[in-house]
Amino acid sequence: MAEQGLLIVISGPSGAGKGTICSRMMESEPELRYSISATTRPPRKGEVDGENYFFLEREEFVSMRETGGFLEWAEVYGNFYGTPRKNVELMLNQGYDIILEIDIQGALQIKEKFPEGVFIFIEPPSLKELETRITKRGTDSKDVIARRMQEASKELKYVTEYDYVVVNDCLEVAVTRVKSIIVAEKCRPQRKRLTLTNEVMGK
Amino acid sequence: MAEQGLLIVISGPSGAGKGTICSRMMESEPELRYSISATTRPPRKGEVDGENYFFLEREEFVSMRETGGFLEWAEVYGNFYGTPRKNVELMLNQGYDIILEIDIQGALQIKEKFPEGVFIFIEPPSLKELETRITKRGTDSKDVIARRMQEASKELKYVTEYDYVVVNDCLEVAVTRVKSIIVAEKCRPQRKRLTLTNEVMGK
Repeated sequence: MAEQGLLIVISGPSGAGKGTICSRMMESEPELRYSISATTRPPRKGEVDGENYFFLEREEFVSMRETGGFLEWAEVYGNFYGTPRKNVELMLNQGYDIILEIDIQGALQIKEKFPEGVFIFIEPPSLKELETRITKRGTDSKDVIARRMQEASKELKYVTEYDYVVVNDCLEVAVTRVKSIIVAEKCRPQRKRLTLTNEVMGK
Repeated sequence: MAEQGLLIVISGPSGAGKGTICSRMMESEPELRYSISATTRPPRKGEVDGENYFFLEREEFVSMRETGGFLEWAEVYGNFYGTPRKNVELMLNQGYDIILEIDIQGALQIKEKFPEGVFIFIEPPSLKELETRITKRGTDSKDVIARRMQEASKELKYVTEYDYVVVNDCLEVAVTRVKSIIVAEKCRPQRKRLTLTNEVMGK
């Protein structure tokens, strides 16, 4: 039987580059699985159920939530979003590592329910650089940018709740660091099947 | 000022390959420093004080030991050996990472006095392979080999006291793992100077 996979939680303020790092990881590590969220929002054109999202009816979502079916959930603009626990646990038990990109509130919820996850905070190199990145996206108004910056300032305080902090200054370096963290975490005695130690202890 | 360096403690049973891994690390990481032990045994031909060992008189050693001058010490065949604390702390404060190869008793002593070290247990792939390696050295009699094997069996139980366990099956893989552990440990929030977080918290 394979060793249990790792749940790798990639989190951090909006604009820190979580998404880009996750995409790069998925590209270079074919064994890695991406956690698929559930949502009550209707599918957009081209979106496939069980691939982009698990699309649920509101009642289904609520009932799953009440029975502890989510590692985390949130309501955004009237729609529910959540990480289904069962699917994650199934893949981990099969030995797959799962990467999960999520905001800080979500990560802290997961940490409470699944502390054996590997919690990585992606940090922008500076507040100035963060503002540049958010502005460059060109999707947000000045007001929204100001609010995102204020949000980020608050969120940076949560870095100490995480197992690791990776500064996303150079993308290649950041991705290499995330990969090293995964290699290192797989060497933790509490995660490994200690065959040899069990042998000498007659287990 | 540089961030504090890491004290990387490479430990494990005799024959697991600690020494080879340390040599490879030293070869490939020029910034890495090797911790130099102190000893009361007389220098052998060609040995240089402060390079191979710090050679101390017995009284000097004992007085240093009484005043907490060693991270660990042991008596072997009537001679004292120890890891001078001051020298290690000086290099760490200058931002150098230090690698230290040591047996399990020594590592556990260091862990007590310096828990912020990174404790890596080097494990042989199997007991059979360990016996082959010890036998191949050709330096030990059958009796000594049997004793070493018995010792190793006892020592393998201590793996859970370590932060990491690296199986030394393939040397290249083992060295890469040790390197990844170092990269990962440098991403720990408690080890980093959290400039950005301090900035937003007005520190």
